[in-house]
Amino acid sequence: MSDHTLDAAIALSPTGEHTSLGRTSPAYANMIGPFGGITAAQALNAVLQHPQLLGEPIALTVNFAAALADGEFEVTARPARTNRSTQHWIIEMRQGEGTVLTATAVTAVRRETWSPPDLPMPEVASAQDVPFPKGSGRVEWIKRYEMRFMEGGAPSNWDGSDLGHSRTRVWMRDNPPRALDFASLTSISDVFFPRIWLRRSRLVPIGTVSMTVYFHASAAELAAIGTGYLLGQAEAQGFHNGYLDQKAQLWSEAGKLVATAHQIMYYKE
Amino acid sequence: MSDHTLDAAIALSPTGEHTSLGRTSPAYANMIGPFGGITAAQALNAVLQHPQLLGEPIALTVNFAAALADGEFEVTARPARTNRSTQHWIIEMRQGEGTVLTATAVTAVRRETWSPPDLPMPEVASAQDVPFPKGSGRVEWIKRYEMRFMEGGAPSNWDGSDLGHSRTRVWMRDNPPRALDFASLTSISDVFFPRIWLRRSRLVPIGTVSMTVYFHASAAELAAIGTGYLLGQAEAQGFHNGYLDQKAQLWSEAGKLVATAHQIMYYKE
Repeated sequence: MSDHTLDAAIALSPTGEHTSLGRTSPAYANMIGPFGGITAAQALNAVLQHPQLLGEPIALTVNFAAALADGEFEVTARPARTNRSTQHWIIEMRQGEGTVLTATAVTAVRRETWSPPDLPMPEVASAQDVPFPKGSGRVEWIKRYEMRFMEGGAPSNWDGSDLGHSRTRVWMRDNPPRALDFASLTSISDVFFPRIWLRRSRLVPIGTVSMTVYFHASAAELAAIGTGYLLGQAEAQGFHNGYLDQKAQLWSEAGKLVATAHQIMYYKE
Repeated sequence: MSDHTLDAAIALSPTGEHTSLGRTSPAYANMIGPFGGITAAQALNAVLQHPQLLGEPIALTVNFAAALADGEFEVTARPARTNRSTQHWIIEMRQGEGTVLTATAVTAVRRETWSPPDLPMPEVASAQDVPFPKGSGRVEWIKRYEMRFMEGGAPSNWDGSDLGHSRTRVWMRDNPPRALDFASLTSISDVFFPRIWLRRSRLVPIGTVSMTVYFHASAAELAAIGTGYLLGQAEAQGFHNGYLDQKAQLWSEAGKLVATAHQIMYYKE
């Protein structure tokens, strides 16, 4: 383990066969409670460090049941079913008597198969040629990421005008850089700012309710990407009476699709 | 409740505060075990008929841990957290001592908000103008759906050629028709045949591992769609060492996006 801020943030201390203690990280603080991506990474980490783990993550769904209070939480990760090459996990995070997160994960031992490049990476400028905007972080966790926007950055005028679409394209990585792994990939899958802020040029109250990440790379493939950038693309599909969804894709600089992610988010007004 | 086959298939008998008994339906039999869509609808139904239910479904994730054996299963649906307007559910389905499905759901009381049409429905022929292919069902559950393919139907030549994409566009509804609700919408979100069969013109062994459905309509809006068709669009994003993902959108004939769905599927070879 490195001494990167992310590693400190996701560290868990085992307290029982399936339980561990963790702690929210001020370095990833959001407006209310921590950044959801780091909470998702903490939930996944309870699986990753479980002694009974089989294989590597294939799918993770986290449901944010309540904003975490600053401080300790308990996380339970239970292997509900272990097959020959797949394993199914139920995860729950609690503070005091209250459940603050529910989640499921699937891990698996992969085998080499036909694996074509299916979804080509958009043609964009290389990361080095896209400027890195300095010092605009409204909340602490933003400073933990380097984001170089090519399309759909935060509105410069919050004037309530309808952009008509909600697509973002951004080169991104941990700040300072850190070698990619499943935990950091999970967290960075949630960095896209709310699609409704982009679409409406308006800061309405929001909160992610559920997020799913599908992993399309092995631990070794992520390690090979190292501290390289990821191209993130995110876009809403539907906004309906208080809930919007977001689809996202993440590619390596070499054009390999490493993850697809989806989330549904609450919004007010 | 109607006497439609789907209603009989998803019927559950409560046996405790959070537990019910259900039974696999021969009408929805797949090659091994039942059609995953009907299993997902059964899992959701454990939430829908729970006396403590708050609101309507917003998000559902089901993980298929093992093929169900024909016969009875027990399903547990526990409200892990109930907030003012949202509720978080953990669901588990068992046969004997073994977990066959894990799931989470979020339900919520919606309020009217800004709700623009975000993702326009593709321009396609109307359902009545697209022929309904008769009697090609390889397995029983296929007969429970009317599917009128406009693009990406099952390959006519299973010759192993690479189609280069995996997109399907299909008008679909229950067969015989049944008024749309959350259970039937969940089930029909899984009818898209495996993207790898389409892409590779080849019947490789497959199985859905995890599926997520986001609902973009209320019970009243679904009821208003009634027995109308849904336009389903599905496409893979990545195929990598044994697992592929699929994104899908479902619109009403009037062009309203009613659900977005994603799944990750195991494949061999």
